[in-house]
Amino acid sequence: MINEAKLLKRYGSPLYVYNRLLLMERCNNVKLFASTLKSDLPEITISMHYSTKANNNVAILSVVESMGLNVDAMSPFELEVAQRAGFSTDRILYVCNNISSSEMNLIHSKGVLICLDSVSQVETYGKLFPGSKIMVRINPGTEGVGHSEKVKTSGKATKFGISEANLPQLLDIAQKYELCIIGIHQHLGSLFLNETVDDYITGVQAGLDIIKKYFQNIEIVDLGGGFGVPYQSTESPLNLLNVAETLVPILKKFVADYPSVKEFKFEPGRYIPCESGSIYGTVTAIKYENGIYWICTDIGMNVLVRPAMYDSYHDIQLIYLSEGEHKQVTANFCGNICESGDILGKDRVVGLPEVGDIVIVKNAGAYGYSMASNYTGRPKPAEVMINSDNHPELIRRAENLDSMLRPFGKLLPLPKMGNFLK
Amino acid sequence: MINEAKLLKRYGSPLYVYNRLLLMERCNNVKLFASTLKSDLPEITISMHYSTKANNNVAILSVVESMGLNVDAMSPFELEVAQRAGFSTDRILYVCNNISSSEMNLIHSKGVLICLDSVSQVETYGKLFPGSKIMVRINPGTEGVGHSEKVKTSGKATKFGISEANLPQLLDIAQKYELCIIGIHQHLGSLFLNETVDDYITGVQAGLDIIKKYFQNIEIVDLGGGFGVPYQSTESPLNLLNVAETLVPILKKFVADYPSVKEFKFEPGRYIPCESGSIYGTVTAIKYENGIYWICTDIGMNVLVRPAMYDSYHDIQLIYLSEGEHKQVTANFCGNICESGDILGKDRVVGLPEVGDIVIVKNAGAYGYSMASNYTGRPKPAEVMINSDNHPELIRRAENLDSMLRPFGKLLPLPKMGNFLK
Repeated sequence: MINEAKLLKRYGSPLYVYNRLLLMERCNNVKLFASTLKSDLPEITISMHYSTKANNNVAILSVVESMGLNVDAMSPFELEVAQRAGFSTDRILYVCNNISSSEMNLIHSKGVLICLDSVSQVETYGKLFPGSKIMVRINPGTEGVGHSEKVKTSGKATKFGISEANLPQLLDIAQKYELCIIGIHQHLGSLFLNETVDDYITGVQAGLDIIKKYFQNIEIVDLGGGFGVPYQSTESPLNLLNVAETLVPILKKFVADYPSVKEFKFEPGRYIPCESGSIYGTVTAIKYENGIYWICTDIGMNVLVRPAMYDSYHDIQLIYLSEGEHKQVTANFCGNICESGDILGKDRVVGLPEVGDIVIVKNAGAYGYSMASNYTGRPKPAEVMINSDNHPELIRRAENLDSMLRPFGKLLPLPKMGNFLK
Repeated sequence: MINEAKLLKRYGSPLYVYNRLLLMERCNNVKLFASTLKSDLPEITISMHYSTKANNNVAILSVVESMGLNVDAMSPFELEVAQRAGFSTDRILYVCNNISSSEMNLIHSKGVLICLDSVSQVETYGKLFPGSKIMVRINPGTEGVGHSEKVKTSGKATKFGISEANLPQLLDIAQKYELCIIGIHQHLGSLFLNETVDDYITGVQAGLDIIKKYFQNIEIVDLGGGFGVPYQSTESPLNLLNVAETLVPILKKFVADYPSVKEFKFEPGRYIPCESGSIYGTVTAIKYENGIYWICTDIGMNVLVRPAMYDSYHDIQLIYLSEGEHKQVTANFCGNICESGDILGKDRVVGLPEVGDIVIVKNAGAYGYSMASNYTGRPKPAEVMINSDNHPELIRRAENLDSMLRPFGKLLPLPKMGNFLK
């Protein structure tokens, strides 16, 4: 049994807490998806690339590495933690958007395969490294999938990928710099579930058709990610095996028509760490104002921005340290940031807690810590992994005053007060 | 003349750049507002408290301090930088929301006046420090003002303040712990301009009426902030003197009716640094896809989240290093983050730049750096102040791989690759 109060006392409140077993289970689900495809496509490599942006903790990446998955990185920091977690170069794909030429230099010097997503970026890369092997991202033009317009990455109005009309220009540029396009990537968006698998499949089919029409000798086809998780109890978990079975005939047909293909890649991000992570926090105040109960906590929008940013739903659980009865109420949960949008959840039916009780925000393992900020000067919290023996391991330290002041360096004016330095 | 290219070469791209003279000018405007009020209320102290959450750079705070303004802090970090910038305790107000008892301990130990915003927080504070002097935040119940629902902080559905119905309970709790309520605070929201001054005035009047009805011997009345700045060229700058003149009769009448009042506080946040700050960045790609021009830059939503978060408008300017003609186009500006919402601005009519040209996002001095994150593993950029002699001064260092890896501490697995450590 995990003692939530002890954890918060030891590592501070709020706190990101991950469950190693659940994380491994999700890695296993993804491997099962791959092996289902593989059994019908025995000549083809099926690579599952965990998308680091969902959660870039090196300990999370180490688990993913030890489970035998591959990884996507999209910044020098993500590449660094991937390598520190043990991923060899051939297991990393650099999937980037609008990077500078100095970043291209860095990636090239590491020998990591790069996926570029515009003719303009391909040209910049070609000038720097003519004759290289690259992947490119196309936009199949189908409507994207997503939990918010902000995360749909296909369709006519997205900044991502190269649309069909520009492929002849792409091929000209590639030829000009003798670039060898060995792989095609597409990504349709984020968070599809069983009900929206069809949109994903339609996009996959469109992408494969484009490859057949425009490209020769492609070896790698990257069909992206977007595998969703159920944030609400009314949603069913994505049936990954069903997705695999739906894909099999489409991919088999493609392989038959297009014999150079050697590998299909998929990029699950959120799916892997989301459910394994929660945020533990503390109730700091209870309010009843204008007919609304407010359960106020120290989990601000700096710690978890998804509800404020996308109106995302996260299940919230209470652990009562307070005694006595907890009257059933409908309440809003909020954080400690001076901004009205700093709300964790609305209209939740719960037993009313008291100050000091513990609040747990579920499904926070993806796009939680990785999107955290220091808004209103609040430090990012620590991250802890619960291992199989229920032993907690600190996997990233909380920020503190010292670490937050460090970027001021020598420029920090000496305190005129004289009484504040430690 | 500022050489933008030189600045970016020296401090890295992207880069926050502040203009000290404009910052001082805005401080002066605020002081003029105060002295206008003061001339009609000679017995009353008028205090202008810069709200640190808009921009917590210690150099910005030093300028605000040297201009004679006061300051609001809302976290231990903000309090620390305020004190490091030279603000003495009596010039700081701690305006907080849902803080823990350990944070209350810290603030109390510093001798800083605290403003609490719920009966629950007042009770927690009262138990810890019976007999203390405090301020409390009320919710006057009028509709808030704001550029987005996420920032309206008055009205029936906000998490902030104590509504009229709960004031008897507040007074009971205060009496129980012998707390002396010396000040009342209210804040209506964010970013009002000349057209919406009336909403602000209505809220002020409602707050003053509540004070008269429920409280005795209040010495400090804090009328909050929300003073806006024009983000779009079609908007006029807020006429602060007009706001002051509109307030004078209301405040004079209040002082006549309520003789214990000694001080009015105001809390300009955004107004002070917003226009003085810009983000300089670099064009990394140009796309034309599905009839849309995309000017792609290294200024991602991790650097400036306001457009992605609130659909905020920021003026964007281009500095052409490239030669030749720049065809007039209508274009979207986006960043380098792998998320569709990572857009800086839409439908801007500009001369089409080339890769390597410089992009400047204006009015980024408030809620820019202070809301920045490390999403997709991108470091926060450096901040530079341009002094009156056009000399740039580094006022906060950029993050880098080392600083971003530091929170992993000893827990960071040794690189199995062996070739990545510096």
